[in-house]
Amino acid sequence: MAVVVNLEGERKNPRPSGAKNALQNLLALVDGDLKAVNETIVRRMHSSVDLIPQLAGHIIAAGGKRMRPMLTLASARMCGYRGQRHIGLAACVEFIHTATLLHDDVVDESDLRRGRATANAVWGNKASVLVGDFLFSRAFQVMVEDGSLAVLAILSNASAVIAEGEVLQLTTANDTETSEQAYLEVIRAKTAALFAAACRVGAAVADRPKAEEDALEAYGLNLGIAFQLVDDALDYASDTATMGKEVGDDFRDGKITLPIVLSFLRGDEEERTFWRRTLEDLDQKDGDLSRAVELMRKHNALADTIERARHYGRIAKDSLGIFADGAEKRALIDLVDFAIERAY
Amino acid sequence: MAVVVNLEGERKNPRPSGAKNALQNLLALVDGDLKAVNETIVRRMHSSVDLIPQLAGHIIAAGGKRMRPMLTLASARMCGYRGQRHIGLAACVEFIHTATLLHDDVVDESDLRRGRATANAVWGNKASVLVGDFLFSRAFQVMVEDGSLAVLAILSNASAVIAEGEVLQLTTANDTETSEQAYLEVIRAKTAALFAAACRVGAAVADRPKAEEDALEAYGLNLGIAFQLVDDALDYASDTATMGKEVGDDFRDGKITLPIVLSFLRGDEEERTFWRRTLEDLDQKDGDLSRAVELMRKHNALADTIERARHYGRIAKDSLGIFADGAEKRALIDLVDFAIERAY
Repeated sequence: MAVVVNLEGERKNPRPSGAKNALQNLLALVDGDLKAVNETIVRRMHSSVDLIPQLAGHIIAAGGKRMRPMLTLASARMCGYRGQRHIGLAACVEFIHTATLLHDDVVDESDLRRGRATANAVWGNKASVLVGDFLFSRAFQVMVEDGSLAVLAILSNASAVIAEGEVLQLTTANDTETSEQAYLEVIRAKTAALFAAACRVGAAVADRPKAEEDALEAYGLNLGIAFQLVDDALDYASDTATMGKEVGDDFRDGKITLPIVLSFLRGDEEERTFWRRTLEDLDQKDGDLSRAVELMRKHNALADTIERARHYGRIAKDSLGIFADGAEKRALIDLVDFAIERAY
Repeated sequence: MAVVVNLEGERKNPRPSGAKNALQNLLALVDGDLKAVNETIVRRMHSSVDLIPQLAGHIIAAGGKRMRPMLTLASARMCGYRGQRHIGLAACVEFIHTATLLHDDVVDESDLRRGRATANAVWGNKASVLVGDFLFSRAFQVMVEDGSLAVLAILSNASAVIAEGEVLQLTTANDTETSEQAYLEVIRAKTAALFAAACRVGAAVADRPKAEEDALEAYGLNLGIAFQLVDDALDYASDTATMGKEVGDDFRDGKITLPIVLSFLRGDEEERTFWRRTLEDLDQKDGDLSRAVELMRKHNALADTIERARHYGRIAKDSLGIFADGAEKRALIDLVDFAIERAY
C-alpha cells in the first residue's frame, strides 16, 4: 500500500500563524492538570482483574493526544474555575472516549490504531467489548462520586448520542449514495458530541451561566466536526507514520466519508460504477486505492473536504466570542487551526 | 443433541408449597407497575435510528421473566413506597440487563437465547455491541432525569462489577481447575450484583434506613447466586423448550460452572483427562455430552449444585427478617423457592 499523498499541493490558504504550536501552547497551559488527569486515569482504571488495567493501559498509553480531556481542562480554566473537580471529570471524558474506541475497533475489525496493534487484535474482541463496558461504568462511578447531576446529564446524553451515531453509521455503511447531510449527522454524533460534552463539562464545573455552557458546547461541536472531516481526508492523504493508521483503511472498509460523497456526486456514470464496485460490493483490486485518490484529486474532493472543515472551524472560533481574551481562549482558538492545518 | 435429563430423580426435599405459584403471586402484586415499566421501556428505547428499537425490541420482547425490574418494584412497595419513580428505575435495571445480554451473546457467540435467535445472529455482532451501548447510556440518562445520586451510585457500581465479573470469567474460561470459590466470585459479579442492585434501588427510592437497603441488597445478592447456580445445573438437565437454550451450551463453550467444578474435583485421573480434552482443548466428539452428564450423576454434581443454591436461598430469605410481614415479603420469599425449584 504505497499510496502516500500529500495535501500540500492542494493548499489554498497560507498556514495561520497560530496553528503550528497550538497543541504545544495548549499543553503548556494545562500541563500540571493534565499530569493529574493521567494519574487519575491510571488509578481509576485499576481492577483486581489484571486484564482490565493491562488492556485499558494498552490503548490509553498508546498516547492519543488527550484532546478531549484537554478541552475539559482548558474550558474549566477559561471559565475561571480554580478547584480540582475538573481533573476527575476530564478522566471520565477520556474513559468514555477509550470505551468507544475499544468498541469501535471491534466493530471496524481494525488491527491498527495510532500505529499500534489494537486491543482486539492482541486480546480478542470479547475482552475489548467487556473492558470497554468496564471503563464506561467506571466513568459513571467517578461522575457519581463527583456528585454533579448536571455533569452526569451532559455525559450520559453524549454517550447515548455517540451510540446512536455509531448505529446510524452501521446502517448507512457502504451506501455510495449517502448525502453530505447524512454523513454530517453521523460525525456530529460519533465524534463531535463528545468534543462538545468535554467542553460543556468545563463550564458546568465552573458553575457558569447557561450562555457560556452553550458557547463552549458549540465550540466543541464545531471543532469536533472539523477534526473528523480532516481525519477523513487524511485517511486518503497521509501515511502510517503521522496518522497511526494506514492510508486507505476507510476505503478498504467501504466507509463512506465526505471525500467519497463529493467524488461520487461529482463523478460520471463510469466513476460511480467504480465506487459501487469497490465500496458497496467491496470488490477491490490492486490499483483501486490509487484510482480512488486520483478521482478525489480530479474532483478536488480532498481539498474541498478540508474547506468544509474550515467552515466549521470558523464557527467554532466565533462561538468563543462571549469570553474575555486570555491565554486559554487564545489556545482554544489556535487549536482549531491546528485541527485543520495538521493536514499539511 | 438428545440429552434431556430431568432432575426429578435427584430431588431430596419435597417441593416447598409456595414455589409453584411464586412467580404468579409476585406478578399479580406488581402487575400494574410492571405494565407501566413495559410502557416506559418501549418509550425510552425509541430512537430515530430504526435499528435501535428493532434490535432492542427483539431481545426485550423475547420475554424474559422481567425478574430484575420486578425485584425493584416489589422491594419499593415492601418498603412502603407509594410514588412512581420506581417505574422508571425498574426500566433502567432492565436496560442494563439487556445491554449485558447483548454484549454477552457477542462474547459467547451464542445463536439462541430464550428459544429465539440472538440479536447478534440476526443483525451481527457490530449492531449488538452498539445497541448495547445505547441501552446502557439510555439507562443512565433516565437515572439522571430521576435525579437521585444514591440510585446512580448503586447502578453504576453494579455495572462496573458486572463488567469486571465478565472479564474475570473470560480469563478463567476453559480452566478445569477453577475452584468453587473462583466460580462463585464470577457469578456473584456477573449475575448476583444486578439482582442485588435491583433490590437496593427499591429501598433507596423509598428513602428507607441503611439497614433496610443493606437487607434488600443481601436478599438480591443471595437470590442471584442461587438463581445462577440453578441455571448452570439446568444447562445439563433441561430441554430447549423450558430453558430457551439448548442443553449443553455451556459444555460446548467449555464454560466452567459448578457442576463441572464438582465433577472434576470428585473425579479420578481418567475422568479429569476427559474434562481437560472436552473443556480445555474443546476437542468434543459425539457422546461426550452424554458422558459429561453421566459423570455429573455419578458424583451427584447436579443435585449438589442445587443443594448449594438452597444454601444461598436460605440466606436470602433470612435477610428479609427485619421487614414486617406482608404480601410483598411473602412473594419475595416464595420467589426464592421458585428460583430453585424451577429445576424440577
